[in-house]
Amino acid sequence: MIDLRSDTVTKPTPEMRKAMAEAEVGDDVYGEDPTVKRLEELAAAKLEREAALFVPTGSMGNQIAVHLWTHPGSEVIIEARGHIVNFEMGAMAALSGALPRPITTTNGLLSPEQVEAAVNPKVSYRTPTRLLCLENTHNLWSGLPMPRELKDQLVAVAHKHGLKVHLDGARIFNAAMALGTTAAELARGCDSVMFCLSKGLAAPVGSMLVGDADFIAEARRVRKLFGGGMRQVGVLAAAGIVALTTMVERLVEDHRRAKRLAEGLAELPGVILDPERIQTNIVVFRLARPDLPGDETLPPNARFVAAMKEHGVLCGAFGKEEVRMVTHYHITDPDVEHTLAAARTVLGKA
Amino acid sequence: MIDLRSDTVTKPTPEMRKAMAEAEVGDDVYGEDPTVKRLEELAAAKLEREAALFVPTGSMGNQIAVHLWTHPGSEVIIEARGHIVNFEMGAMAALSGALPRPITTTNGLLSPEQVEAAVNPKVSYRTPTRLLCLENTHNLWSGLPMPRELKDQLVAVAHKHGLKVHLDGARIFNAAMALGTTAAELARGCDSVMFCLSKGLAAPVGSMLVGDADFIAEARRVRKLFGGGMRQVGVLAAAGIVALTTMVERLVEDHRRAKRLAEGLAELPGVILDPERIQTNIVVFRLARPDLPGDETLPPNARFVAAMKEHGVLCGAFGKEEVRMVTHYHITDPDVEHTLAAARTVLGKA
Amino acid sequence: MIDLRSDTVTKPTPEMRKAMAEAEVGDDVYGEDPTVKRLEELAAAKLEREAALFVPTGSMGNQIAVHLWTHPGSEVIIEARGHIVNFEMGAMAALSGALPRPITTTNGLLSPEQVEAAVNPKVSYRTPTRLLCLENTHNLWSGLPMPRELKDQLVAVAHKHGLKVHLDGARIFNAAMALGTTAAELARGCDSVMFCLSKGLAAPVGSMLVGDADFIAEARRVRKLFGGGMRQVGVLAAAGIVALTTMVERLVEDHRRAKRLAEGLAELPGVILDPERIQTNIVVFRLARPDLPGDETLPPNARFVAAMKEHGVLCGAFGKEEVRMVTHYHITDPDVEHTLAAARTVLGKA
Amino acid sequence: MIDLRSDTVTKPTPEMRKAMAEAEVGDDVYGEDPTVKRLEELAAAKLEREAALFVPTGSMGNQIAVHLWTHPGSEVIIEARGHIVNFEMGAMAALSGALPRPITTTNGLLSPEQVEAAVNPKVSYRTPTRLLCLENTHNLWSGLPMPRELKDQLVAVAHKHGLKVHLDGARIFNAAMALGTTAAELARGCDSVMFCLSKGLAAPVGSMLVGDADFIAEARRVRKLFGGGMRQVGVLAAAGIVALTTMVERLVEDHRRAKRLAEGLAELPGVILDPERIQTNIVVFRLARPDLPGDETLPPNARFVAAMKEHGVLCGAFGKEEVRMVTHYHITDPDVEHTLAAARTVLGKA
Repeated sequence: MIDLRSDTVTKPTPEMRKAMAEAEVGDDVYGEDPTVKRLEELAAAKLEREAALFVPTGSMGNQIAVHLWTHPGSEVIIEARGHIVNFEMGAMAALSGALPRPITTTNGLLSPEQVEAAVNPKVSYRTPTRLLCLENTHNLWSGLPMPRELKDQLVAVAHKHGLKVHLDGARIFNAAMALGTTAAELARGCDSVMFCLSKGLAAPVGSMLVGDADFIAEARRVRKLFGGGMRQVGVLAAAGIVALTTMVERLVEDHRRAKRLAEGLAELPGVILDPERIQTNIVVFRLARPDLPGDETLPPNARFVAAMKEHGVLCGAFGKEEVRMVTHYHITDPDVEHTLAAARTVLGKA
Repeated sequence: MIDLRSDTVTKPTPEMRKAMAEAEVGDDVYGEDPTVKRLEELAAAKLEREAALFVPTGSMGNQIAVHLWTHPGSEVIIEARGHIVNFEMGAMAALSGALPRPITTTNGLLSPEQVEAAVNPKVSYRTPTRLLCLENTHNLWSGLPMPRELKDQLVAVAHKHGLKVHLDGARIFNAAMALGTTAAELARGCDSVMFCLSKGLAAPVGSMLVGDADFIAEARRVRKLFGGGMRQVGVLAAAGIVALTTMVERLVEDHRRAKRLAEGLAELPGVILDPERIQTNIVVFRLARPDLPGDETLPPNARFVAAMKEHGVLCGAFGKEEVRMVTHYHITDPDVEHTLAAARTVLGKA
Repeated sequence: MIDLRSDTVTKPTPEMRKAMAEAEVGDDVYGEDPTVKRLEELAAAKLEREAALFVPTGSMGNQIAVHLWTHPGSEVIIEARGHIVNFEMGAMAALSGALPRPITTTNGLLSPEQVEAAVNPKVSYRTPTRLLCLENTHNLWSGLPMPRELKDQLVAVAHKHGLKVHLDGARIFNAAMALGTTAAELARGCDSVMFCLSKGLAAPVGSMLVGDADFIAEARRVRKLFGGGMRQVGVLAAAGIVALTTMVERLVEDHRRAKRLAEGLAELPGVILDPERIQTNIVVFRLARPDLPGDETLPPNARFVAAMKEHGVLCGAFGKEEVRMVTHYHITDPDVEHTLAAARTVLGKA
Repeated sequence: MIDLRSDTVTKPTPEMRKAMAEAEVGDDVYGEDPTVKRLEELAAAKLEREAALFVPTGSMGNQIAVHLWTHPGSEVIIEARGHIVNFEMGAMAALSGALPRPITTTNGLLSPEQVEAAVNPKVSYRTPTRLLCLENTHNLWSGLPMPRELKDQLVAVAHKHGLKVHLDGARIFNAAMALGTTAAELARGCDSVMFCLSKGLAAPVGSMLVGDADFIAEARRVRKLFGGGMRQVGVLAAAGIVALTTMVERLVEDHRRAKRLAEGLAELPGVILDPERIQTNIVVFRLARPDLPGDETLPPNARFVAAMKEHGVLCGAFGKEEVRMVTHYHITDPDVEHTLAAARTVLGKA
C-alpha cells in the first residue's frame, strides 16, 4: 500500500531503532534522563530559545501553551481551519476553558487587520482576548508556509494588544525548507513554539515545546497535569535526536514529490487544484465529480478515496469535497507515478 | 435621554414594584418560596412543558443547558453570530469545556444541510458533536424571528444525529408576536428553552429555563453550582409573574416602532438597511459614511453613536460598521420621531 | 413553625420591602444602577477596602475569588469542614479546576503550623498551592468566630509562601459582634472578603465581594462569566442597604438567644454540647441517643429532627450524629423557650 | 548509587530494548499499530476484561477514568492519602471538575461504612457523589495490599449507591503476588482498572487502562483529548509486552528484600516501623530523631535522606517525618545490606 493519508504514518528509521535500543535513560519526572536533556537542549538551540520540553504529542504541546497563556474564560484568535481548534478534541475548551475566535480566510493566512478587529474591547462584559495561535505550515490549507514577514506583522499586532502568540509549528521545518530560511527565523517573536519530531522527521513519537526558561518550567508542570510526565522516556528522545539531526534536509524531497503529484492531478477531470499553491508536502484538492461510481450514500470524494484504495493507494477525505495526499519519508518517486496512474484510471481522461 | 441601546435597560413597572413589595417569600434553595413556584408553574404551562426554573440571568439559563447537554470535550453547533458564543464571556468553554462549531450564514438562519455537514464523524479521533443551539429571535441579525417550520427541520436533523437542541429564546415572545404564533409552538421539539422576563417584558431581573422534569431537576443543581441558588427570591419572581402575564401582547408596539424607525433610517445617506428585514424590536444597520465628522481614531459607526448622544439618543455600535437600536417598553412614538430627526441632522439628507 | 434550620430562611423586613419598591434602578451590567453603586460603596467603606461587588449569592462571591486567585491545577488550603469545600456543589473544582487541601482540626481553627505544612514544595511534579480560604464565623463549627490575632498569623504564613487569602465572611458581622471588634479588623490583610446581606442581616438575596479595585474589576467580569450579571438589580441592592445599615447591631440578640438555647439543651440527656463554645447564632450538638423512638432506618439525629417537627420546631441534621439550630431575626425569646420545652419532651429528663 | 526513591526509576531490560528495536509499528491513532494491539489484548486477557488501552502514564490512565465516570461538579470518594488526589497535580479538578471527598483512615483501608457515610444525599443542593477510587497496593501506606474480600465489600456499597468504582492498580501485580491471588481477582467488580508496565515491571514508559469495550472506546477518545494519542507507539508497547509476560513473578524478590530492609531498619533508634506491615516493595517509616545532625533548616527526615546520600543510598522524604524506600528490579541483596549498614552509621545503635 502507498500510504498518503498523512505524514503521521512514518515509521522509525533503522538508525532511530538502534538509538532507541542503546539510549541511556533515567527518570525524566525527576529531570534525570540524560538523553531527554540532550534532545531538549538541541531543540532549544535549533529554535534559538532558552529552553525546550519533550512532549508525547504535538496536541499536548499546543494545549500546554494554550493552558499557560490563558485563564478560563479567554478568547483565542485562530484561523478558522487551524489544527488546534479543529483536530485536538475540543481540548482548548475542555482543558483550559478557552473559547476560540476563529477567523475565516480565503487562503489560510490571517491578516494583521483581521487579528486587530477580532480583539475584544477591554470591558467587563466582553470575553478578554488573550492569545493568537498561528500554524506554519498550515495543514488544512495544503501545507501552506507562512512567510516570516507576515508572522512578524501578526506578532506585532498581537503584542500591541497584550496577546501572547503561540506557533503550532508541527511542520515548521517543512516551512523553513520551502521558504529557504530557518525554523528559528519563522518562530522568532512567538512566545511559544511547538514542533513535531514525528511526521516528516519520522520519529515514532514525540514533539517539542520551546520558549523561555520560565515558560518551560511551568510547561513541565502542566505536562504532568495532562498525564504526559513519562519516566525513562529517553528511549523515545533518542529517536528524536536522530530525527532532528538527520531528517530535516531531506524534506525537500517530499516537497518535490508533492509538487509533481499536484501537477499530475491538476490535469485530471474534476480536480480543482492550483499546483502553484503546493509548496510543501501536503496536497489538498477539491473534487467536482458527482458522476463518480461507487457507494451512492458517500460523497464523491469518499468514493474517490475508496477507488484509489483498490489501486493500492491510501489517501484522505475531508468534508464532502476535499481529498488530501501527503508525501513523506516512505513515499518514493515510483509511488508518486503509481498514484497518478491510479488517479487517471479512477477519474478518466479530461 | 432616549435609550435605544438595548431592551435590557427596561425598568420595572409600578405594578411590578407593588408585586415585589408584597410578595410572599420563602427559602427557594429548599424549594419553599411560593411565589417562585407559581412563576415556575406559569412558565412551564406557557411553554407547554413539564417544568421550569427561575434563573438570575439569561446567560445562566443558557449555560446550564450547555452544561447538562454536553461533557467536556464536546462540540456545539451554533450560528456564528449567536449570543451564546459571542456574548456570554466564553462560559461554554470555561464552565462546560464545550467547543463551539460556529456556522457562518448570510441571514442568521442555519439550514438543515449546514447542521448535518457540521456534525463530526463518530470516530475516536474527532470531537463528538453533542448539541445544537438555536436563537429566536436572533439578536445580532436584527432580531430576526425563526419560523416554526425551519426550527422543526433543524430539530429533526439534530435529533437524527443524536444531538440535543437548546433554544436561546431570550426574546421568544417577540418572535411569537411577529410570526403570529405562540412561544410553545416555536419551542416545541427543543430539549430545553430559555426565555427572559427582563428585556421586552420589563421585569428587573430574571429568566426561565424550561424543559422536562428530569432536566429541570438537574438544572436546579447546576444553578446552585454556578452560584445562582438564591434564597427569598420570590421578590424577583413576583415581578416576573407580572411580566409574563401582562407584558407579552404589548410587544407588537415595540415592533411597530422598530419598523417605523427602520423605514425612516433607510432613507438616510450611508445607511444600509432593508426595512423588510426588521420584524421585531431590533434595528441593526451598516453605516457607510467614512466622511462623518468626530474623533478620527474611532470608526464611523462609533462617531455616529457619539453624535446621536449629543442629540439625546443612546444607541450601540458593533464592530466597525454596525449600529444597533432597540425599541422597548420605555420608547414612545415621539421618541422614534425624535431619533429620526436626530439621525437626519447627523447624517444629512441624501 | 419555629424555623431554626438556618438563618438563610429570614424574610425581608417591611423597611426592606419599601426600599425595594421605591429603588432607583438602571442597567448594572453597564454600571448604571445607582442603588447598586451606593451599596457597593457602602460595603467597601464598611470593610475599609477600595471596592466591592454585589453578587446574587455568597457561593458565587466565594467562587469568584477562588477563580481569580488560582489557575486550573492549584491547591487550596481550607479547614476540612469549610463551607467552600463542603456546601458549594464542587464549584471550586468545576468552575476553577482547583483542588482542595482540607485540613482536619479539633476546633475549627487552623494553626499557622498546619498551613505551613500543607504548602506543597515548589517542584514541577507537585501541585502548586495558591490560596488559603478562611471562614469567619465558621458555620459547621457552631458558628465559631476566629479571633483577629489568629487571622493575622494565618495571613502572614500564607503571604510568606506566596499564597493569597480569601475570607468567607458570610457571617462576618456575627463574628465582629461576638468578638467586640469590627468586620474591617477581622478582614484586614485578607486579599478578598465575601459577606452576606441575607442570613442574619435578613436581606432576601445578595452578598458582597470586597477587595482592591483591580480585583473587583476582574470579579465583575467573572460574575458575568458565572451568569451573575443582572440588570436592574438595584431592587435587591435597596434591601441590602437597609440590611447593612440597620440590621448589624441586633445580631447580639441572636447570639444571646443561641446561648440560652445551648445552655438549656446541654442539660438534656444525650446532648453533647459545651455551651461555652456557642458564641454566635449557631448551635451544633452531637446526640448520643440510639434509644430514641421513630423511623428505625434513620439515625437518631434525624429521628430527633422529625420529633421536633411534630412539636412545631424545624432544625437540621448533619451526618449521622449532629443537630444544628440557628437563631435569627424571626426567632423570639418565647420561641427559644418553646424549643427547649419541645426538646425536653422529646429527649426526656436526665 | 543505590536508588530506593521509587520503583519508577527502573530502566528497561536488554530484552525490552531488543523488542523495542524490532517492534512492528503503525499509526495507533488510526488503530493500526499491531504491537499496541497485541499488548492491549494481552492486558485485557490478564485482567479478564473486554478491552484495554495503552496510555503514556498511570496518571493519565487514572484521570481518563475519573473524567468518564464523572461530570463537572461531582464528588469522588478516596482514601485521604491516595495517589489520585495527592500526586496527580490536581488533575481530577483541572481536567474533570471533580471534587475529592478524602477519607482519613488509620491503616489505608477504607471501610464500607466510611464509604456509605461519605455519599451525599441526593438533593439538589448537595454535590452528587459519583465515583469511588481504590488503590491497590496503596503507595503511601507502605505499599499495603487490599484483600479481595474488602474490595468486594467496597464495590458492593458503591454500586448500591449508584457510584462507579475505579481501581488505581499501579502496582496491582505486587498486590496479587503478596496476597497469593491474581490481578483479575483483585480487580473484579471494579468498573475500570489502571495498572503500570513501568515501576516494578520495569518497562520504560506506559500503563494500561482496562474495562469493558464501551468504556475503552470512550477512553480512547479522552486519551487523545488529554494529548496522549501517540502514533508509532508500538516501540513502547513492545517493551510493555516483555514486562507483562516476564516480569511479574519476580516481584516476590522485591517483596522479600523490602521485608528484610524493614526488619533491619525497625531495630534502629528512632525508626518507627512495624515490619509486619511491609507486605510488598515499599517501606515507609517515621523517624523520631530531632537530634540528627545536618542542615538545621530541614526536618530530621530530610537530614536523614541527605546523610544516606553521602553513603551512596537515595531514598525519599514525605512531609516532615516520613522516609520511603522502595525495592525494585535493580536492587540486589547486597544493596539491601549496604543500605542497612549506612542507616546504622547514620542513626547509631539503639
